[in-house]
Amino acid sequence: MLKKKEKYVVAVVGATGAVGNEMITILEERVFPIEEIRLFATERSEGKRLKFKGDDIAVETLGEKSFEGIDIALFSAGADMSEIWAPVAAKSGCIVVDNSGQWRMHHDVPLVVPEVNPECLKWHKGIIANPNCSTIQLVVALKPIHDAVRIKRVVVTTFQSVSGTGKKAMDELLRQTTDFLNSKEIKSDVYPHQIAFNVLPHIDKFLENGYTKEEMKMVNETQKIMNDNSIKVTATTVRVPVFRGHSESLNIETEKKITAAEVRSVLSNVSGIVVFDDPGENEYPLPIDAAGKDAVYVGRIREDESVERGINVWIVADNLRKGAALNAIQIIEKLIY
Amino acid sequence: MLKKKEKYVVAVVGATGAVGNEMITILEERVFPIEEIRLFATERSEGKRLKFKGDDIAVETLGEKSFEGIDIALFSAGADMSEIWAPVAAKSGCIVVDNSGQWRMHHDVPLVVPEVNPECLKWHKGIIANPNCSTIQLVVALKPIHDAVRIKRVVVTTFQSVSGTGKKAMDELLRQTTDFLNSKEIKSDVYPHQIAFNVLPHIDKFLENGYTKEEMKMVNETQKIMNDNSIKVTATTVRVPVFRGHSESLNIETEKKITAAEVRSVLSNVSGIVVFDDPGENEYPLPIDAAGKDAVYVGRIREDESVERGINVWIVADNLRKGAALNAIQIIEKLIY
Repeated sequence: MLKKKEKYVVAVVGATGAVGNEMITILEERVFPIEEIRLFATERSEGKRLKFKGDDIAVETLGEKSFEGIDIALFSAGADMSEIWAPVAAKSGCIVVDNSGQWRMHHDVPLVVPEVNPECLKWHKGIIANPNCSTIQLVVALKPIHDAVRIKRVVVTTFQSVSGTGKKAMDELLRQTTDFLNSKEIKSDVYPHQIAFNVLPHIDKFLENGYTKEEMKMVNETQKIMNDNSIKVTATTVRVPVFRGHSESLNIETEKKITAAEVRSVLSNVSGIVVFDDPGENEYPLPIDAAGKDAVYVGRIREDESVERGINVWIVADNLRKGAALNAIQIIEKLIY
Repeated sequence: MLKKKEKYVVAVVGATGAVGNEMITILEERVFPIEEIRLFATERSEGKRLKFKGDDIAVETLGEKSFEGIDIALFSAGADMSEIWAPVAAKSGCIVVDNSGQWRMHHDVPLVVPEVNPECLKWHKGIIANPNCSTIQLVVALKPIHDAVRIKRVVVTTFQSVSGTGKKAMDELLRQTTDFLNSKEIKSDVYPHQIAFNVLPHIDKFLENGYTKEEMKMVNETQKIMNDNSIKVTATTVRVPVFRGHSESLNIETEKKITAAEVRSVLSNVSGIVVFDDPGENEYPLPIDAAGKDAVYVGRIREDESVERGINVWIVADNLRKGAALNAIQIIEKLIY
């Protein structure tokens, strides 16, 4: 358990990545009580320095003794790094919040979205998992509806931005777009196909059942976070040429009937959600508007006449913030306050 | 009814638009038996000339006597033009295939996709309606599955390219992208919000029930074309920064169980469909691949475990070709051959 202090020594592992960068920014923005910040990355980033509250902080590489004296370690360096180093950090007494997929479904590791299952923070054993970006915004929107009328089934199709893949993918979208405009040949390194002016129904690896890992994360993580395996989810996850902000089209079947007006009312009173739903004024959530914001935006709320008790909803959130860095920091805020 | 001839006088109304252009191209490609082609557009295009089989054809404006001597008129000039001029054309003995939304749900007008309901061509009274782009590719994919196991319900989310809006929207995406790369202010004229590097859950006008007209077209046109009001459809239609090719994520509930392998087999034997579904080789339908092609491409075929008898499918087609111009020309081919 985390000993309460006035200020904490916080490490960011994967500090030079898109999510790591965002973690540093958010720690600064939210005036998290930091005694000292330590920044870690792979050898490739050795010698780099990053700004924190005006100071130049050297980026270090990880070693066996790196975590000595560190209270909290925020990991966002990929599953392989987390597999090796999260237990090392936890063993040295550090609380790890891990943004990778490595520990999420481990029975000893709570998978937490503070708006949904903060109670699960009580039983952590040193490692707390941060859910997948597309799952976080989904469960934030589902939870109040589930509490009101119980959710039976969700059909979700995602529109995920390239920043979910990381900085290299953002560079690839920019480069391909420029090459397209200049009638140059378009090359793909990060994705198997061109992403500029295209959409790819392929996120993460394909599994035996024909689904991608990303799609199955949405099924399994949702059930774990909501602590309810009776909620059925099926997902199609799609990469779109957007830099930042994931959008999701949700079709939700509920046990009891809920009207569109009731959904609006239920979601309007929840911290972390902004209902933005005035089609007459062309107001609905957009990824370019959600980028850099903290909330999960919900709009296009409609009753679905194709089923007895159904609603359609469109949700958007910043995948680097609520979908990753912000949620991790909200987790540690729950632990210290 | 159309009198069989060796060659026909064919008019394209709206010849300078994105779909009109495509109609001219396809008439040429498919060696349609044309005696003479007549091209019509609004006053704005007066004086313009367009190529057809090497000839320069003058673009004319419509008048009361324009349709004299014309056998077939392909309309793609918007609902207002079709409302006025399609009956004029039909009255003068011309067969009209109308690509606008004006006549689609009229009980006297067949709404036809040749792969799905060619028998409806028998009862036309001079006007035949071409369905909405997003509906055409949907019903082409649904029909063989419906015939095999009966479809109860479809949840569809679309990823629609800007060419569905027209040439001006294609120019807007190009201009906004260029302005973004040059850090210039981005202005939106065609769409209510920026489309470059963004997605808009808004296609056509909003209706009282919170759905857009585009979404309700998918519901109503599907039932009319399939001639089965028991097929329930709910839709969320989204504009994406893609120039050409509409993609759709479908969740289909069936009456009888069908496996993914059976779906593949059922769809593989159908004219107009290409099953492109080898995730291990990163093969799935993409809008940039479908652009300029005639087929409806189907992939990502998976059984949906969230419901007793369900499948997920990803379909892509060229919205200007199968979604508009090609379907219209396939309709007149059915009439003449």
